[in-house]
This record gives sequence, C-alpha cells and structure tokens, in this order.
Amino acid sequence: MIKVGIVGGSGYGAIELIRLLQTHPLVKITHIYSHSKVDEPLHHTFPHLQHLIHQFEALTVDDNDCDVIFFATPAHVSKACIPPFLNTGVHIIDLSGAFRLTNRDVYEQFYQEEAAAIEDLARASYRIAEWPNVLSNTSVCHSNNHSEINSDAPLSLGQLIANPGCFPTATLLALHPLINERIIDVSTIIIDAKTGVSGAGRSLSQRVHFSEMNENLSAYAIGQHKHKPEIEQYLSAVANETVSVIFTPHLVPMTRGILSTIYVKLTTPHTATSLHHLMTSYYAQHPFVRIRALGQFPTTKEVLGSNYCDIGIYVDEQSQSAILVSVIDNLVKGASGQAIQNLNLLYDLDITTGLEQSPVYP
Amino acid sequence: MIKVGIVGGSGYGAIELIRLLQTHPLVKITHIYSHSKVDEPLHHTFPHLQHLIHQFEALTVDDNDCDVIFFATPAHVSKACIPPFLNTGVHIIDLSGAFRLTNRDVYEQFYQEEAAAIEDLARASYRIAEWPNVLSNTSVCHSNNHSEINSDAPLSLGQLIANPGCFPTATLLALHPLINERIIDVSTIIIDAKTGVSGAGRSLSQRVHFSEMNENLSAYAIGQHKHKPEIEQYLSAVANETVSVIFTPHLVPMTRGILSTIYVKLTTPHTATSLHHLMTSYYAQHPFVRIRALGQFPTTKEVLGSNYCDIGIYVDEQSQSAILVSVIDNLVKGASGQAIQNLNLLYDLDITTGLEQSPVYP
Amino acid sequence: MIKVGIVGGSGYGAIELIRLLQTHPLVKITHIYSHSKVDEPLHHTFPHLQHLIHQFEALTVDDNDCDVIFFATPAHVSKACIPPFLNTGVHIIDLSGAFRLTNRDVYEQFYQEEAAAIEDLARASYRIAEWPNVLSNTSVCHSNNHSEINSDAPLSLGQLIANPGCFPTATLLALHPLINERIIDVSTIIIDAKTGVSGAGRSLSQRVHFSEMNENLSAYAIGQHKHKPEIEQYLSAVANETVSVIFTPHLVPMTRGILSTIYVKLTTPHTATSLHHLMTSYYAQHPFVRIRALGQFPTTKEVLGSNYCDIGIYVDEQSQSAILVSVIDNLVKGASGQAIQNLNLLYDLDITTGLEQSPVYP
Amino acid sequence: MIKVGIVGGSGYGAIELIRLLQTHPLVKITHIYSHSKVDEPLHHTFPHLQHLIHQFEALTVDDNDCDVIFFATPAHVSKACIPPFLNTGVHIIDLSGAFRLTNRDVYEQFYQEEAAAIEDLARASYRIAEWPNVLSNTSVCHSNNHSEINSDAPLSLGQLIANPGCFPTATLLALHPLINERIIDVSTIIIDAKTGVSGAGRSLSQRVHFSEMNENLSAYAIGQHKHKPEIEQYLSAVANETVSVIFTPHLVPMTRGILSTIYVKLTTPHTATSLHHLMTSYYAQHPFVRIRALGQFPTTKEVLGSNYCDIGIYVDEQSQSAILVSVIDNLVKGASGQAIQNLNLLYDLDITTGLEQSPVYP
Repeated sequence: MIKVGIVGGSGYGAIELIRLLQTHPLVKITHIYSHSKVDEPLHHTFPHLQHLIHQFEALTVDDNDCDVIFFATPAHVSKACIPPFLNTGVHIIDLSGAFRLTNRDVYEQFYQEEAAAIEDLARASYRIAEWPNVLSNTSVCHSNNHSEINSDAPLSLGQLIANPGCFPTATLLALHPLINERIIDVSTIIIDAKTGVSGAGRSLSQRVHFSEMNENLSAYAIGQHKHKPEIEQYLSAVANETVSVIFTPHLVPMTRGILSTIYVKLTTPHTATSLHHLMTSYYAQHPFVRIRALGQFPTTKEVLGSNYCDIGIYVDEQSQSAILVSVIDNLVKGASGQAIQNLNLLYDLDITTGLEQSPVYP
Repeated sequence: MIKVGIVGGSGYGAIELIRLLQTHPLVKITHIYSHSKVDEPLHHTFPHLQHLIHQFEALTVDDNDCDVIFFATPAHVSKACIPPFLNTGVHIIDLSGAFRLTNRDVYEQFYQEEAAAIEDLARASYRIAEWPNVLSNTSVCHSNNHSEINSDAPLSLGQLIANPGCFPTATLLALHPLINERIIDVSTIIIDAKTGVSGAGRSLSQRVHFSEMNENLSAYAIGQHKHKPEIEQYLSAVANETVSVIFTPHLVPMTRGILSTIYVKLTTPHTATSLHHLMTSYYAQHPFVRIRALGQFPTTKEVLGSNYCDIGIYVDEQSQSAILVSVIDNLVKGASGQAIQNLNLLYDLDITTGLEQSPVYP
Repeated sequence: MIKVGIVGGSGYGAIELIRLLQTHPLVKITHIYSHSKVDEPLHHTFPHLQHLIHQFEALTVDDNDCDVIFFATPAHVSKACIPPFLNTGVHIIDLSGAFRLTNRDVYEQFYQEEAAAIEDLARASYRIAEWPNVLSNTSVCHSNNHSEINSDAPLSLGQLIANPGCFPTATLLALHPLINERIIDVSTIIIDAKTGVSGAGRSLSQRVHFSEMNENLSAYAIGQHKHKPEIEQYLSAVANETVSVIFTPHLVPMTRGILSTIYVKLTTPHTATSLHHLMTSYYAQHPFVRIRALGQFPTTKEVLGSNYCDIGIYVDEQSQSAILVSVIDNLVKGASGQAIQNLNLLYDLDITTGLEQSPVYP
Repeated sequence: MIKVGIVGGSGYGAIELIRLLQTHPLVKITHIYSHSKVDEPLHHTFPHLQHLIHQFEALTVDDNDCDVIFFATPAHVSKACIPPFLNTGVHIIDLSGAFRLTNRDVYEQFYQEEAAAIEDLARASYRIAEWPNVLSNTSVCHSNNHSEINSDAPLSLGQLIANPGCFPTATLLALHPLINERIIDVSTIIIDAKTGVSGAGRSLSQRVHFSEMNENLSAYAIGQHKHKPEIEQYLSAVANETVSVIFTPHLVPMTRGILSTIYVKLTTPHTATSLHHLMTSYYAQHPFVRIRALGQFPTTKEVLGSNYCDIGIYVDEQSQSAILVSVIDNLVKGASGQAIQNLNLLYDLDITTGLEQSPVYP
C-alpha cells in the first residue's frame, strides 16, 4: 500500500482527498496534518466522516514515513512547508498555486506575495494528467525573462507535482487540442468562466455568506484572478509563443462545478463535424475527458462528484468562430481527483484507479 | 412627515426597514446610524441602495431630532443604547430581544448576558400588531417571580416598543385564537419551526457559509433557542397560566421565510370546518393574516417580501389533534414589517400604510 | 385612473405586472384575462395573491373598456389576439417577441413559426424606455430586405408597443452608449449571458425540474436563441450598419436575475476612467440605470425585485478591450417593470411612477 | 458475479442503483429495462453516464438470465410486472410501495389504487437491513383485519423484498430501539419530516418546477401521505400493538436529503446520557447507523451520497420528552443504497459491500 499523508486537513481539498482515497485500493491514508487542530479527532471538524478514525497531527519532516504527501493548503503554507521535503524522498503533490507559475514576477503580481525560490520552482512539474509530456519537450521557455525556469524534468524525477488549478484544468483541457493542432488564433481567446462557491474554500467572507450568495450571480476579480497567468503560461507553452487571454470568472449560487465557455477564432477552415472529430480523436485514450455529441452541451451536475471533464463544441461555420463549453467538478477534476490521477501516474497505475465513481445525479 | 432614524444600519433588519419605509407616504428616513461606519455612504456597504443618498452617522441622544428610532441591533447594543432615550420623547421600536422578556432570570439563562434593568423593562410594550390589547388587560403576571414586571402600559404611553421575534410572530399568530378561546391543551404544544438563513443575520459563521449551508438542512439550538421563552411568556399571558412548549428550530437552505408547524391537542370538540371558521372570524379584520382555505397549506414563498402571515389548518377529527402551518417572511412580518405596523399603530395610521407590497413570486 | 387589462394571467409576466401595478397610483387593474381559467378566482392559481379579488375573464375586443392592455402571452398568442385591437383605441403593450423583429424571415427562422403580418409589424414600436427616440430618427432600415418595415412611428402614435426581451434589455442598455458614440468595433461583440430560471416561464420541462436544475449550470440554445436577432436588429439600428453578435445564454440555478458579460474591442483610445465617465454621463438623467463605481461589479441580487439595470465597467487599457457587466431582474426591468415604464411614457408620467421599489436584499 | 437487472431505468432510483452498483465488486449490471425507451442508449436520457455502454431493453420473464432484478418503478408497475417472476427463481427487490403494506384496505385508501393480490403480498418481506428478524418473530398481525397477511417468511425464502420507503427508513431506524425497549408512549408519537425534492421523482409538476420550488418551503399531504401507514404498520409490529402516528411531510428546496424530527414521551425515566447509551449500544454492530455525540445534531449534507443514517438525541429530562433527529440521503439509504444492502443480505455478503462511499461534502 502507498502510504499517504494529507496536509491542510481542515479544508475542502483535504476532505475531498479523504473521500476519494478511502476507496483507492492501493492507498492507505496514514496521516492527516493540521497545524491548528493537532490531536483533535477528524470528525470533530467534519462530522460527516465520523466513521473514520483519524486524529490531526503536526507535520514533521524528520522520520516522516509517508510515500506521498498531498498539500491541500494555501499557497503561502505550501511555499513554506514543502521545500524541506524535497530532499527526503517523499513525493509531494501540491494543490496550491505556489509552484505553478515559473515566472516569479508574474506570481508576485497576481498572488501579492513573494514567489517560491527559483531552485524550488525548478523541481516542480505542472501536470494536467491528460497532457502528453509536451511540457517536457517544449519546455516553458517562451520568454527571456530571467526569472523563468525550466520545468521539463522527466516525469520519473518529478518529486514535486504542482497540481493544476480548477479554472485552468477546465480551460486547458478544452483548448489544448486546438492550440496543439495550430487551428485557432491565439491572440483572441476569451474565457468566460463560472464556478460554484466551494472554489472559494472554507474561509468565511461576506461574499459567500449564504444569505448574500444564494440567488445571486456575480463577476469577480476581472483581470486579476490568479488563474489568468496560469492559463496563459501553459497555453503559451503549448503554442510556443506568448498567449494572453481575456479571463472573466463568475460566482454561481451552487456549491460545486465549473463551466468554462471559451470563444476562439478558427484559423484553419473547420466544420462542427471536423472539429468534433478532432476533439474525440484527441481524447480517445483518455477516459476522463468525454466529448459530447454535436448539439449537446454538458451541464455541471453531469460531472458532480466525479473526475470527468465533459466538453461540448459549437462552430459558427460562417464566421469561423467556435465556442467550447467545458465542465468539471472543481473539487474533483479541478483539485483532489486530478491530484490522485497524478499519484496514479507517479506509480504507473491505471489512471482511473480509485476514481471510478460515476457522477452523483441528480 | 414622521422623522425616522435607524440604528444598526449595516444589518439585514435595517436595510429591510429602509426598503419598506422608502415607499411609506408619511415617513422620512432622516438618519441611519452605524457606530462602525460613521461618515461612510450607505451604498458602500449596500450597493443595491446606490440610488439613495445617505451617510452613516454616529448615534447621539442630545438634540436628536427623530420622532421614532428603530433599533435593528443585537440585544446587548439595544440594552446599552436605548435607556438614555427613554426620557427624551423619542419613540423607540426595538427589533432585538433585549426588552421582550419580563423575567430577568429567564433572559439571562437564554441570552447568556445580563438582562436589562427592571425600570427599563417596565417601560417596554411587546406588540404583535394584530393582538388586541390583551396584554394590557391581563398583564404578564402569571408567576410570582420577583423579577417579573408589568407590561400593561396603555398603548398611548408606550414609548418603547419591543418588536416580537420572528419565530414567535409566526407561532403566536397561529396559536393566539386557540388559546384565547380555550380550546387546546396548553401542556402539549409542539412547535417544529423552520427558518431561512437570513434569520441568522449578516455575521459570518461556518454554519451559514454558502458551501456548507447550501443543500443542507439541520435542527439547531434544541431546548436553548432565545425564542422559546418568548413564545412561552406570551402564550402564558394569553392562557393566564404557565405554558411550556417544545420548540425545535431548523435551518433551511433558503434566504427568507419561516414556516412553523404547530401540533396541538383540542380540548373542545372541533371539526376542520369549525376550527377554520374560528380562525377566519378571529382574523377577519386583520388584513395581514390570511387564513387559507381548508386543504390548502401556505408556502413560504407565497409571503416573500410581504408583511403577510398565512395560516393553514389541519384537524384529525378522530384523535382531536390539530396541526397549524404558519408562514411569514422573517425579515418583514418577522421583523421590519411588523416594526412598521407598530409605527402605524403608534401614529394611529391605517395599519397597512407603507406595507401594501404583494409577495414577490416566484 | 388608467384602466388596465392583463392577458396571460396565469404566467409569471402577468403576476409580476399585478404585483407592480398594485401600488401604481394612477393605474387600476380592471381585468385579468386567461383563456384557460375563465371565472376562476385569481388566487386559486396564485395563492400568494389571496388578498386580491379578481376573477379570470375571457378576452373580448368588443366593448373592451380598458385603456391599456398588457399581453404577457407567448408570441403565437400575441400574434393572434393583438391585431383586432389595433383599430379600437386601446393601447397595447406586448411582452412577447411577436412584434419585435421587423424582418419576417429572421423571425421565422428563430421562432419557427409564421411571422406577424407586415401591416401589424408596421404599427409596432420597440421601446427600451431609456433610449432616446433614436429608432424613429434612423429607422430600422439597415438592409434592403423587402420584409423590413419602418418602425419610426412617433411615440404619440405608438398604439402597439413591443416590449423588449430580457437578454436584449440588459445587453442593449450596456452597449447603446458605446455604439452610439462609435467607439467600439461592432464586428467582434461577444455576449456571454446568464439567466435565472424564471425566464423560462411557468411551463414544465425536464430541464427546469427542480432536482435537475438545482445545483446545475448549463449553456443552451447556442446560436439559436430568439434574443440573438433581437439584439442584432437594434444594435444595427443604432450602428447604422449590420451588426452580428456571438450570443451564448446560460441557465443558472436561481429564480430571478440576468447577468450579461459583454466583450468589446475599443476603436477609440479609452481608459477605464474615460469610459466610466462616458457611461455615467450618458445615463445621468435615467434613474433606472445605475453605473457602478470603477472596480465594482454588480450582482444580480442587487437589483432583485426592482426595475434597476446596474452596469460595471472594466477596461484592459493595453489591449483596448472592454468588458461590461450588466444586471437586471429579468421579470422586472426585463419584462413587466419595463412594460410599466412604457405605460408611464405613453401617459407622459414620471418614468418612475409605481416603480420606486428598492431591491429586495438579501 | 451476481447478474443484476434494473427496471425503471429512466428514474432516479434506477440511476442511483447504477451509480452505486458500478463499484460493487460482486455485481454486474446485465440489463437495464425501460418500457418507453427500448433500444435507446442509456446516455441519451442520462448524459452523465456517457462512459457506460448500456441500451434500454424490454423486460421479459421468459429466459431472463438475471439473478436479481431491482424494480425502481411506480407501485402500479411493480404490482403488474413482479408477480410473473415469483416462480422463476429470480430474486426481486422492489423499491416501490406496492408490497410494503400488508393491509389491503389501508393500501387502497392511501394509494388510491387496487392493492396487490394477497398471495403476492404473502411472499414479500419488508426489510430494513439493520433490523433483527423481529418481524419474522412477532409477525405483522396486530389486528384481526381479514386482509392482513403474515410476512414472516424466513429470510432465506424471501424471493420478493419490499424495500422500505425513504421517510419510513429515517423514522423507523430512530424509533426502533425505543419501541423495542418499551420506553416510550406509542400513542403520542409526532413525526415532523422534511425531504429534498428528488423524493418526488423525475415526473414534472408545478410544485417542483424550479422557479416555484426554489427558495420555498411547504408542508404537504398532511394526514394522507403513503408513508404514514407504512410507518404505523412496522411500528405496530415492533410494539406488538396498534400504533398511530402524526406524520407531517415538508418539501425543502434542496435535491437530496431527509431529516425526520421525532417527538416522543418517555415512559421509563431516562437522561440524555442513558438514552444515548441505549442507542449507541443498539447500533454498535451496524456500520451505517451513526449515533451522534450528545449535543450534536446531524445535517442532511453530512450523509449526502452515502448510505449512512445519522441520529441525534435530545432529552428534556424535566418533562421526560425526547426528540430524535434522523437524517439520510433519500436516494441512497432511503432507496437504492438500502436495496443494495438487501442484496448483500440476500447473498450473505458483508453488509457494506459496494456501499463504502463517504458522504460528498460540501
């Protein structure tokens, strides 16, 4: 059994890891860490897990017997706590944004805090599990900025996996085939993204106070969201040129789910049928990406609780513009589920191991 | 015009007062007070009120030019800030629980804080606007407890009105006719009450964090809710004997609305028809209480945004037990709307003045 | 008093008209028509209106004593029932799409039913209440299609008002100043629109069945929505050239509210400040359009139940692209509220008469 | 592998069976039956199951190769389609109410349709999986009504399992220990039950139309709900005397979850602690019943998607009344999950096989 530790045990990322790993046949959760709740039973914080016997522990580097540690922590915690592990042999999968951006200036602009050290960033691999090892081949080096680093460590050496963000996952899975095939204009991409509220985490704020969030819909962080540079960096890596996007996140009165509506201009003539064929072929070997039949668009509930990413395609043949609608459960494929996929990759397991759950519908 | 001030200007009670009073033909809101936001424009906190020009002010007793001040504040604030006004000629309508309970021991047990002074309690009148002046006649003196006071000041002298709580309003309106007519066993009343989340106010807590409250339903504060003694005190006053109730509040994933399901045993033989007749007669002159046709039960949305209290009646004739279903909008009839009714009473206006809004449906 | 009749009395448009007109000081609802419910009391269908005494009636043309009749009916009903009134002196305000599109071919493509007769279309005026009489000046004649008609009847003669659709209202109010001032590229407009479920009306369908709609988010009718040609026709009229838009509607799990996120390219250099200034100046005399402060974006709940349209502005100065976020309550400003504004215009009343309600928040 | 067929393949019960059985290690779904959709692929109706390859089939009795068939069908369909299987050796688990009530008169009163034949009822076993074989011992024979039958067939012979209803499951699990231990007054039980909307199934109705159900709360079917006689029959069987209950269902604006608040009078002196001890002891060997710590009450979301029934306990020691709060996911423990438990019992498997999913939270 793979011995797994989870840090950030009182957040949504952690409890979703616990839910999913509970039925993973080759994993045993040996430690759940929470700085602020040491020695408290897990179910004091999460009564829905009363059937599990766990106590929160303090994280230690020395004598840590985990094979893999998931960090489901804020970026500043990941930045502070992960580096000491990088020479210990423990594999780290970080669900925060701390090690996703290779450009430290960009990180500091969008995260409003100091970026991780260059040498630590250099050891991180950003992994959308469905992607071919494209980043290792092309490298993330589309600019000359001195704070750029090369993240092309071969998978086998990837001791620190930077697990992608939720909006980027839904968006990059939809756009990757189109950019990789060089069939869209990368200068005019517009991403109108909508997320359920759990993406904002467990921390309290007026905006996500039930009485004000319920029956309410809003745009937020326009031009400033941390996932904008993440999307841009990896689209740039695929395109091999600098890509800027317009990215507008919206907050929707539901708990789970992301729907990303993506507007692109085609540069190679395509019909709806040909684009659909391209997408289905591209993902034919990837069980978690389900391309929908033409004329059908996915809804967020159709993936709720599961690791699927469903994508619908619309082509306006006259104007040669296309619209992609991509949905995921932000806490599964957008966070903890994808992190488990990355663990499966790390151990060369079948990619679906422990992730076979069908969506919870209705 | 009646000059009105509102204290607690950054809470839900206050903004509902503002919404409703905005179209009251005889009232002008002259001051909105908020200790923590002095000099800030109202719409910085509440952008939905951008069309109104108001700045938060600091509350002062001296030279206060208001005719009426509404306190939409926590009980401890009301307790501290209201007494200095009691000799100034300003009428006070308090939406908190500070002056509702005449028994100070009971107050201290349920509110976990010191009760208001006896002399201040003595000047408060608890006013469910539909009630006849029954309390003035019978007085609230069903026990010999020394901390009891007499709240039977004639209406014309009521300088401090203790506006009823939300659960008590829905519940007392349904039970008043039955107890007043002496047709139920007052020792076996069970109140299973359900409220939307706005009843918990604007203060943040994990329980009402959107992601945890949404799609969730729970019971809370069983045996300990502050509205239990309030219901008991006023039922006792009507019954002229001590009444204890079982009261179980539940939190429902919606913003507004209270539904109180009330189980009683009939002591005088009644059919559904006769009970329905009793109720409709009782409230014939009260436009805000709508007794539903037999076989029909009200839903919370059917009163949303309005000052109505709708009541449905079920009688199991064999067992002579009855079930009453009473619904209100907790922020209107359960708080700010009833407070305006009380202002109308105070100035001998038509009771519906400024409260003619139909429910917002759907 | 203006005597008003309402047709379609069992739908959401009608009950919202009833709610709003109930407090209009110069209007009396004299008749509520419903073909399928003749002689039934209104409150059998809508118990929330138990306080109103109305019976559904059959609509008749002869001896109809209404001054104004609102048709809150499906387009095919409006098309069939309105023409006989056009010579009777009764003013008609139609909330359906039957008379909004001047191009009959386009109508038939998007509505999948025969268009209204040319002579009837010729008598209809499309009225966004805030618009200057621009359409009368420029006319809606941007193409040579023979089925086009001229809708520039002077207001005083407008016996049939085609009340705008919900998505078009939110969208056109935001775009009108920019197009009128000729500062955006009209060939690249993208409208990502989101609506609450009440826009789909009272008719039952699997998509809006609670268990499947709740906690669910979807795109729908991409490229096929009836409001696409409506938006295009009136943008074209303002631009004086043919405008095509990309328009993607989404269905959000809430009852009321539309949020339209609009992506445009600026053709004249603008900063956020200058664009904000342009918008605030443009709407300075229009109380129902509230331009938000820079950096602040409106949420749907901030206009719920009210006739406001709130607009937030974002400019990416480097790429000279702008994002407008426009919100309305689809049943008020997007339907019944705007219809009442149009009645006020018709009778030269203050535009806010009967529409002073503040938003219901939270 | 146990070969399983599912009838009623286009309803919520069926898709929940599919979701859960998908990961059951010893079951293979070989057939999904739907009369109205023969030969259509499953995912045309349920796109969320696009990853599964199934076609709806017509149900046949002859040559049916299933080991077990689940009927997730309306009662009238179960009544018509199940009897032909009763001599074929196929095990039937029926999720409808068709075979739950042994008294045919009561059935016909509450279901408003003819009851199943006596000989078919005689072959049905009602199985709450956690119950000891109490019903076999005492039999369901508390009255002399001639249409009563005896359901005490030994488990090993139970070819037709009548799977309990959702409200009865939540309620009976909470009450069984108290009645079995003879510590409550069975003449004063009040059950105030609240359910999410999925309990109403996939069929469309105005009541569960999203715009009217959302932000709405109501009581319904008071005194008439089909689950009232079901609860009464099995409480009577346990009590060995006729038990009548007051049962008030409510509809809550959420998709999944039942919360049953149960009011009882204690007849044997108990403290909260002693009652808690009784309950925890009673269910010590039953992993799916989680008794909550004193002072803590379960919420519906804490069991969502899982087979748990969580129970909280409150005792008013002075009045010797107790309140039990019992929650389940109505589609899992209240329907499909419990049906799988019954399959596990039938094959003598570990009761948790295939049902190990933790709740989906938040």
